[in-house]
Amino acid sequence: MNANVKIEDLEVGYDIPAAIGMDEADIQTPALVLDLDALERNIKKMGDYAKAHGMRHRVHGKMHKSVDVAQLQVVLGGACGVCCQKVSEAEVFARGGIKDVLVSNQVRDPAKIDRLARLPKLGARTICCVDDLANVADLSAAAVRHGTEIECLVEIDCGAGRCGVTTTPEVVEIAKAIEAADGLKFAGIQAYQGAMQHMDSYDDRKAKIDIAVAQVKDAVDTLKADGIACDIVGGGGTGSYYFESNSGVYNELQCGSYAFMDADYGRILDENGQRIDQGEWENALFILTSVMSHAKADKAIVDAGLKAQSVDSGLPVIFGRTDVEYVKCSDEHGVVADPDGVLKVNDKLKLVPGHCDPTCNVHDWYVGVRNGKVETLWPVSARGKAY
Amino acid sequence: MNANVKIEDLEVGYDIPAAIGMDEADIQTPALVLDLDALERNIKKMGDYAKAHGMRHRVHGKMHKSVDVAQLQVVLGGACGVCCQKVSEAEVFARGGIKDVLVSNQVRDPAKIDRLARLPKLGARTICCVDDLANVADLSAAAVRHGTEIECLVEIDCGAGRCGVTTTPEVVEIAKAIEAADGLKFAGIQAYQGAMQHMDSYDDRKAKIDIAVAQVKDAVDTLKADGIACDIVGGGGTGSYYFESNSGVYNELQCGSYAFMDADYGRILDENGQRIDQGEWENALFILTSVMSHAKADKAIVDAGLKAQSVDSGLPVIFGRTDVEYVKCSDEHGVVADPDGVLKVNDKLKLVPGHCDPTCNVHDWYVGVRNGKVETLWPVSARGKAY
Repeated sequence: MNANVKIEDLEVGYDIPAAIGMDEADIQTPALVLDLDALERNIKKMGDYAKAHGMRHRVHGKMHKSVDVAQLQVVLGGACGVCCQKVSEAEVFARGGIKDVLVSNQVRDPAKIDRLARLPKLGARTICCVDDLANVADLSAAAVRHGTEIECLVEIDCGAGRCGVTTTPEVVEIAKAIEAADGLKFAGIQAYQGAMQHMDSYDDRKAKIDIAVAQVKDAVDTLKADGIACDIVGGGGTGSYYFESNSGVYNELQCGSYAFMDADYGRILDENGQRIDQGEWENALFILTSVMSHAKADKAIVDAGLKAQSVDSGLPVIFGRTDVEYVKCSDEHGVVADPDGVLKVNDKLKLVPGHCDPTCNVHDWYVGVRNGKVETLWPVSARGKAY
Repeated sequence: MNANVKIEDLEVGYDIPAAIGMDEADIQTPALVLDLDALERNIKKMGDYAKAHGMRHRVHGKMHKSVDVAQLQVVLGGACGVCCQKVSEAEVFARGGIKDVLVSNQVRDPAKIDRLARLPKLGARTICCVDDLANVADLSAAAVRHGTEIECLVEIDCGAGRCGVTTTPEVVEIAKAIEAADGLKFAGIQAYQGAMQHMDSYDDRKAKIDIAVAQVKDAVDTLKADGIACDIVGGGGTGSYYFESNSGVYNELQCGSYAFMDADYGRILDENGQRIDQGEWENALFILTSVMSHAKADKAIVDAGLKAQSVDSGLPVIFGRTDVEYVKCSDEHGVVADPDGVLKVNDKLKLVPGHCDPTCNVHDWYVGVRNGKVETLWPVSARGKAY
């Protein structure tokens, strides 16, 4: 949104899905709706957990892409800052007043490296990940050019199968190169086990994290023996934060989805075999959708399709209903099985998206609701910031 | 984009992925790139086909959501106007100078109906679909309130399994109600067989359209016998337009994907058993992506993940390469199998997205390229217009 545009000048239905003060029932659909009470409880709960376990919580801003949500996580959840995956996202958070920003990803393109090196001038501690010796010289040159400091974490691939080195000698070699480079500061280790977060079984998840912890501990201990301290040992997600917190190795969590929840995370089980959306976390994020056709007796057509959500992790679930089911998704249509014909045209349903991150990325606004009224409108500030 | 913002004032990498005149190699990734030569050939070819077969072509604007592409389809492809799926999209096209706009969908929400009734004031012929008698009175009241005219097509479900009535008596009943309603004009039939478009076999697709044509012909003939003429009998997509064109019943095509192509459509076969992306249509749309990590010898990590595309119809295909393969997609990462280690960090790849429509909807800009240079930047004008 252009900084000079005021929310009260925007037109509901064209620019924005709702106006502040409006009844929840009048929100233009499809729209992302946040249950503010649930959101605040989730944020507070995770903040309290991190504090009680002596962990910093660097919240994952790439999940919500919202400066407003990030600021709430700082104020209410005691977050130390944010992580995100793209330099363009980091710019949005830094411009939005977040003082400590980690790009938990590799930054290799020369133009992106240059922008990263300018980030500290916005007042933000600037951190990125490195998994390749060749990157160190490029980052260093950019920081020197701009007279800034970039802090660097060495990224370990501890099971995600994406970026990151896999052996301690590689970690040590890159860490030493960072230490020796002008304009850079070695800040520690990035080790996020992304692949295990969605395993249903608590014990299966624990087994994967045990492997990761051993791998990270070896690197941290070896660095320490070489006189190199890790300020940050970061990782952990909504499906694993208790393991990292109790590892004795990690000191920063990077949880994202806990704040909103989604259907795919909701299905995983806690230590007692209970779904995590049935006690541990509350669904705070919904896609509000309307029935727009009921020409066949047993199916309702709703207005939230593939352009209102990502179905990469499965179809959305209709919140609080067992009598109707979202069974098919095309570009602009959702098919809802309605065997008893209980739905009427213009009825509204709240969908829990299959996967919150890419779903938030297709919307421009969060509509914050409390007690049935629209309390706030928050732009999805970093939506589309993929560079 | 705010109307007062000029492209030359935007910052590459923050606001826009490229600057006009830039080398293609310098585009910030991930970005949507259009091969302008291929795009223009596709548009011209379909326009020529429609003209040669006496069909109007109402191009599907919901695919690209771009006023610029739609205007090219009018100028170069002889399109009679656009169709789209949402009132908020229709507003973008009407404001962008498209004079004939069909919302090929149901409009039921009172606020949306009100906006639809105001569309003619933007200078656009305004058409929508109806599949429920109860909708007629609401549309009529809004048109009368604004002193405008809404034209209405009765939507037939001829196999898509979404909106639409299924029997001729229902069509006739709704058509007569439209004819009788103040502010409305009956304009014909909407009958898009969406479910068959992606069947690989030409003969299988033909069998499905034969059923649809028989169903539509019965409705059109019955209306005619009742003295009710259909100005528009519309339908047809990239996988079927030749069937509708030769049906003797349809008179308007509604193709979208032919202009850009994607991997899912590309796989379907023409009459001679050849893939339609190997002769009938050219790939004009690509996601340009960069390698950002190659820490493991046999896999490269690229910067286009779920937030740069939709994988609902399968993973993207790497254009022009058989030596490397896009094998996994997470939020901000793509994993590319590189068994021979041919890729280097910062190498760029052109991805053909699995499904063009929802992929275009996550991007803000099309970068138009010709002869290796950025020739134009077009906003995805109706991106996020889901209301």
